[in-house]
Amino acid sequence: MASLDEGWADPARLYREGRRARMLLDAAREAAAEVVGCRADELVFTSSGTSAVHSGVAGALAGRRRAGHHLIVSAVEHSSVLHAAEVHRAGGGSVTEVAVDRTGAVNPSAYAGALRPDTALACLQSANHEVGTVQPVAEVAGACRAAGVPLLVDAAQSLGWGPVEGDWSLLTASAHKWGGPSGVGLLVVRKGVRFAPQGPRDERESGRAAGFENLPAIVAAAASLRAVRAEAAEEAVRLGELTERIRARVPGLVPDVEVVGDPERRLPGIVTFSCLYVDGETVLHELDRSGFSVSSGSSCTSSTLTPSHVLRAMGVLSEGNVRVSLPAGTREEDVERFLTVLPGVVAGVREKLGAPVSAGDDAARRGEDTVVVDALGRRCPIPVIELAKVIGDVPLGGTVRVLADDEAARLDIPAWCEMRDQQYLGEEPAAGGTAYSVRRLT
Amino acid sequence: MASLDEGWADPARLYREGRRARMLLDAAREAAAEVVGCRADELVFTSSGTSAVHSGVAGALAGRRRAGHHLIVSAVEHSSVLHAAEVHRAGGGSVTEVAVDRTGAVNPSAYAGALRPDTALACLQSANHEVGTVQPVAEVAGACRAAGVPLLVDAAQSLGWGPVEGDWSLLTASAHKWGGPSGVGLLVVRKGVRFAPQGPRDERESGRAAGFENLPAIVAAAASLRAVRAEAAEEAVRLGELTERIRARVPGLVPDVEVVGDPERRLPGIVTFSCLYVDGETVLHELDRSGFSVSSGSSCTSSTLTPSHVLRAMGVLSEGNVRVSLPAGTREEDVERFLTVLPGVVAGVREKLGAPVSAGDDAARRGEDTVVVDALGRRCPIPVIELAKVIGDVPLGGTVRVLADDEAARLDIPAWCEMRDQQYLGEEPAAGGTAYSVRRLT
Repeated sequence: MASLDEGWADPARLYREGRRARMLLDAAREAAAEVVGCRADELVFTSSGTSAVHSGVAGALAGRRRAGHHLIVSAVEHSSVLHAAEVHRAGGGSVTEVAVDRTGAVNPSAYAGALRPDTALACLQSANHEVGTVQPVAEVAGACRAAGVPLLVDAAQSLGWGPVEGDWSLLTASAHKWGGPSGVGLLVVRKGVRFAPQGPRDERESGRAAGFENLPAIVAAAASLRAVRAEAAEEAVRLGELTERIRARVPGLVPDVEVVGDPERRLPGIVTFSCLYVDGETVLHELDRSGFSVSSGSSCTSSTLTPSHVLRAMGVLSEGNVRVSLPAGTREEDVERFLTVLPGVVAGVREKLGAPVSAGDDAARRGEDTVVVDALGRRCPIPVIELAKVIGDVPLGGTVRVLADDEAARLDIPAWCEMRDQQYLGEEPAAGGTAYSVRRLT
Repeated sequence: MASLDEGWADPARLYREGRRARMLLDAAREAAAEVVGCRADELVFTSSGTSAVHSGVAGALAGRRRAGHHLIVSAVEHSSVLHAAEVHRAGGGSVTEVAVDRTGAVNPSAYAGALRPDTALACLQSANHEVGTVQPVAEVAGACRAAGVPLLVDAAQSLGWGPVEGDWSLLTASAHKWGGPSGVGLLVVRKGVRFAPQGPRDERESGRAAGFENLPAIVAAAASLRAVRAEAAEEAVRLGELTERIRARVPGLVPDVEVVGDPERRLPGIVTFSCLYVDGETVLHELDRSGFSVSSGSSCTSSTLTPSHVLRAMGVLSEGNVRVSLPAGTREEDVERFLTVLPGVVAGVREKLGAPVSAGDDAARRGEDTVVVDALGRRCPIPVIELAKVIGDVPLGGTVRVLADDEAARLDIPAWCEMRDQQYLGEEPAAGGTAYSVRRLT
């Protein structure tokens, strides 16, 4: 509020309001740099975390042009990183996407193995934005440093909780993610890192972020980062216990649930699970009616009708996906109420969709070795529901073929097999879609 | 303030706070579009006026790639436009800079003459940001339309005062210029204009402005635009009278002043003049001590030590340049006090610099036909002061050669000749700098 009154002027101007604005900007930069753990002249303010990532990736790749045109990213980066990688690929560069395990984490040796003599830049998030899994940044940074390759860390999810460990070269973040205002991102480029800003020249922010500085928001961003960090250690413990409570109790409260993300190395405030036989959009709306605002990586909740790339890369169930974010200050009683409301919501949606009540073992046995289920034109979670309904109809060792054209089926049928201890045999093209084959084992 | 409380959520989310944010965003878009005079789906919010220009120019050029690679800009565009043009040129495109007259305006026929069969895009500001001259946008837009070339209008200076007339194709603006918040720009792309957004893909704002929407600022921007416009007609008359008062009275109050910009076709709130024999930075600081915050296009006030490209393109004096912006609500008594304070400030600076009190006619005649003045290593306004001091030393028809290495001399020596009715003969390279030759006529 103070900087809306005091900091409206142009910090490039010589008159007193301009000089005052410049002082506020310098002070905000010093404060943010101290929290990040860098020099003030290594940090610029951008207009968003996304623009910090776009500028950081483009500038680092251009600065290292002579080293080569190879870029490494993890498969579960934020879309801003993956879209910057797409542009690099479209411009003739090569990109390696390092896979993640079922918890969403990269393996440091696998990441190190992707480094090549022509690698210009490597990117790794500090923690995942959808499932909360913390990445082994320090180990990966060490491997990159040994290979002489700069590592850009997208710290959007974690900067409010603590500094990014390890010998990273570039760092990006977004103020609204730590509870600060919209319209402010951070881009840190360590001294000595080759960096060539792309796009039209602009004198502001060391030529690394074009446009009139949003000073009131920048001041609020720096102040809120400092405030959030002052309470981070204590709040992380408290929220960590609340998310652990959700992780531990949801599988007991709701049948056929997969809790995803690393159980130990995780952010304090994000917990994600997927519920078989429900669609994410309906669950979101039902929870919303009960006063809970959650997100989802299910295909039915995205405009592209494909499941979240993070869930896909992890190979976990995407249907009925629920992502709960607990902001700092979340009350224990709200978490308890959520755990009380959730089972009824999921059960209600399942009932409407005609989901199997149990795993199908009590279904009539018809003795056919192969049953074909036609779910063409049906959206998630129907293909999986139909599969679950008929699996008990084939004998042990028998096969169900599910015909589906919904992209989510590609992820969710294998994930269902994993959860149900059935054998996923693979997919093949079929008229109007894809045929997914499953062998009954239990 | 209300939207800081109500509009913090992600408008892409399905829960109620997200839906409310989406409604606020849609309402802001409708309101802004109505003021601009376009359809809501033609308008996106960007993070600044600069980013609107960068995205608009790049997207329009890419969308018209098949038509050709020729770009037209005026010589007095905002630096964001000129820097976007630089990028285009660096990428192999061609750029025509249309010259302006001494008032800062382009000639519509000259602009039309720059149109070529391979012209992909033309850019013209609605009014100039340094001297307030209004450009003949409607005429230029007509010529562009006839040639099938889209015209992008940078309306940053004028949108708060009224809609942009004429058949333009793209429009950009910046909220803080109309008294709105920092961190919001507008980019309008008329339906039917070929447009291919550049840079990494992003789903927000129709793919034309990446990054999380700064919703509180967007709402405030739309509200302030509507509020400012409601009072624009009346306030424009009042401010226009105040700037006219400055334009009319400054030449009588301060000797050796050039008031610049068009006397009629001008913005209500900007008035600019240049004072011989003073440096802009000292004038700014002295005015600042008296409580007046003004800007300057003098070389000594810019980090690059070159005069403003606008003054350069107009061919007017750049030394001692003072730009007075009167925001809406400026009081008459403040303008009067400025007119009272200004003469003493300029006289004080001139005295310190040893400027000639009159035009030098009373100086001792030495009878030499040519006098050489060595001002190498001396900054603006010293080269012009030295020239003025010795011009009386040569007979009528005699010549003064000024040796100088300050970039401002290239603009200010011809401008001084124009103001003093002396003949500027031209420049040639000389040891350590440039020799500027002036013939005494009066």
